[in-house]
Amino acid sequence: MKTRSNIKDIARIADVHPSTVSRVLNPETRSMVSEALAEEILRIAEELGYRRNPLASGLRTRKTFTVGIVIPDLTNPVFPPIVRSAEQTLDGAGYIAILADSGSRERREAEIIENMRTRDVDGLILATATRRDPVVDTCVEQGIPVVLVNRTVSRHHVPAVVNDDELGIELALEHLVGLGHEHVAYIGGPQTTSTGYGRYHAFTKSAKKLGVNVDKDLIVNATAFSETAGAAALDALLDRGKHLTAVLTANDLLALGCYDALDAQGLRCPQDVSITGFNDMPYVDRMDPPLTTLRIAHDALGVQAAQLLLERIEDPEAPAEERRLAPELIVRGSTARPADP
Amino acid sequence: MKTRSNIKDIARIADVHPSTVSRVLNPETRSMVSEALAEEILRIAEELGYRRNPLASGLRTRKTFTVGIVIPDLTNPVFPPIVRSAEQTLDGAGYIAILADSGSRERREAEIIENMRTRDVDGLILATATRRDPVVDTCVEQGIPVVLVNRTVSRHHVPAVVNDDELGIELALEHLVGLGHEHVAYIGGPQTTSTGYGRYHAFTKSAKKLGVNVDKDLIVNATAFSETAGAAALDALLDRGKHLTAVLTANDLLALGCYDALDAQGLRCPQDVSITGFNDMPYVDRMDPPLTTLRIAHDALGVQAAQLLLERIEDPEAPAEERRLAPELIVRGSTARPADP
Repeated sequence: MKTRSNIKDIARIADVHPSTVSRVLNPETRSMVSEALAEEILRIAEELGYRRNPLASGLRTRKTFTVGIVIPDLTNPVFPPIVRSAEQTLDGAGYIAILADSGSRERREAEIIENMRTRDVDGLILATATRRDPVVDTCVEQGIPVVLVNRTVSRHHVPAVVNDDELGIELALEHLVGLGHEHVAYIGGPQTTSTGYGRYHAFTKSAKKLGVNVDKDLIVNATAFSETAGAAALDALLDRGKHLTAVLTANDLLALGCYDALDAQGLRCPQDVSITGFNDMPYVDRMDPPLTTLRIAHDALGVQAAQLLLERIEDPEAPAEERRLAPELIVRGSTARPADP
Repeated sequence: MKTRSNIKDIARIADVHPSTVSRVLNPETRSMVSEALAEEILRIAEELGYRRNPLASGLRTRKTFTVGIVIPDLTNPVFPPIVRSAEQTLDGAGYIAILADSGSRERREAEIIENMRTRDVDGLILATATRRDPVVDTCVEQGIPVVLVNRTVSRHHVPAVVNDDELGIELALEHLVGLGHEHVAYIGGPQTTSTGYGRYHAFTKSAKKLGVNVDKDLIVNATAFSETAGAAALDALLDRGKHLTAVLTANDLLALGCYDALDAQGLRCPQDVSITGFNDMPYVDRMDPPLTTLRIAHDALGVQAAQLLLERIEDPEAPAEERRLAPELIVRGSTARPADP
């Protein structure tokens, strides 16, 4: 490649050995060459538009200006806006992002991060954290700068940018109660994730606060944040035969799965059952019916995760900071007053 | 990092100097060490789970096992499935992918690729090509392996995996004509892209073949593949006051923009106007109304682009191959028979 041959080009024009050029181009070894010759070589290098190979200089400075971003599922539309805003923020600081999709599997996640580590990434943004996450612990032990986004770990020893799950769930439940719903079911996510765990506890807490009776038979925590798992969870709830007029879910994909389960049973949303989601992922405003949900600050999540990581790379010993962003309730067609009994 | 200290660990256990370990671990210098000692050192290295730093060995072999993927817009849901399948295929071959989003701007694209080049990527997958693309030309001139996906260039001198646009447009028009539509409008994409250009010409060709009268006032090529551009294009068409009962669009986002424009004018889809899209991007089956569209082979596009690139990296001089994948018409609720006049 051109970048490589340039050292030889410079050497030929300056009539010196290529190794002399290398010495001059590396600030650490420049003093080994006479000042006049060094100046001459730098002038020629500039004329030829020479640029140091950051891969090679990375080996010396131990910086690669590369950051790894690991997400659990690129086809979940909640992640692209987060990734894009993180990438743009990193780009503004001269970093590029390596993106990888773990498929929500912990072993695959560990492999990805091991792979990124051997490429000496300067830091990692992980959207994949579980509450007790050995992969995150490994990064912390080895001193790799890490920032968690959207999900965090239980011990709070790692910088993170997350949503205020408690506020979000309370806003959704308040909305349903305000419409007159008394039999509200809850479909949550995997309890191994901070979002699954936190939103479930936020539901029981908010119910108590709002004076809503919590029927344990009306609560199911799904095995994944996916449409299939959401449909299976609502099927399981309906099988129990308890009366329900609304389902508050912990995630938009779970909510879309509820649409499918209702449809399969010949029930209508919102006439028979109201549904709420969480995330306001792109396009849920166009769905049939448009989804009432909690809008998380997609762009701010990505920007702030990138900013926290850049600070972390500069100062790896800074105390871990958790930023909590407030979601906003967006009311659309999937929620309505309950039908008269 | 652990990877680094391991050479010292191996040296300590084998009771040799670290440089001896380095010589053994590098196949090119192994013969400088006695066979018995080399075997001993390799055994210890294996026991300690030593792995060569690919960044360092990349400098020797001139390979970084890194591939750049550039897409025009990560938040367009058509790209994540393509990116994911490409990434998984590359991962299977020991490569990692650097992903970047060009925001559909040519200058930004050039910057991204320049940045990736200085990091010595082994090759590039570009979903961003325009028909005459100086960035693609530069890559070809400099001998960087490149594969285009979804869009290609006019000169066909670069390997590409694209959709059979002509077949797709013909299937959609045939469907509308079969329903009884005689006044079919066309909303295309930017003529600077192969998809915008090819689909527009496919429309006029298919119309001739199917005996449909082509009214030039019923054709608009939008300035971008976006919802906003689609809405503006249909507004412009409706302003012309010509009778139309269906709109064939070149892209799902354009079709969703048409939903918005119809809505703003108090027109219903499909009762007043039928709409078709192109791509079958995720979630259009859940929209109101569910979109009739052409399903492109998302996964195959990504897998085959990655495979072509891997072949290209092995043999940069192989002739450029263009693979054309057949789309499938998926009929949903956005198309119906035209209302009686």
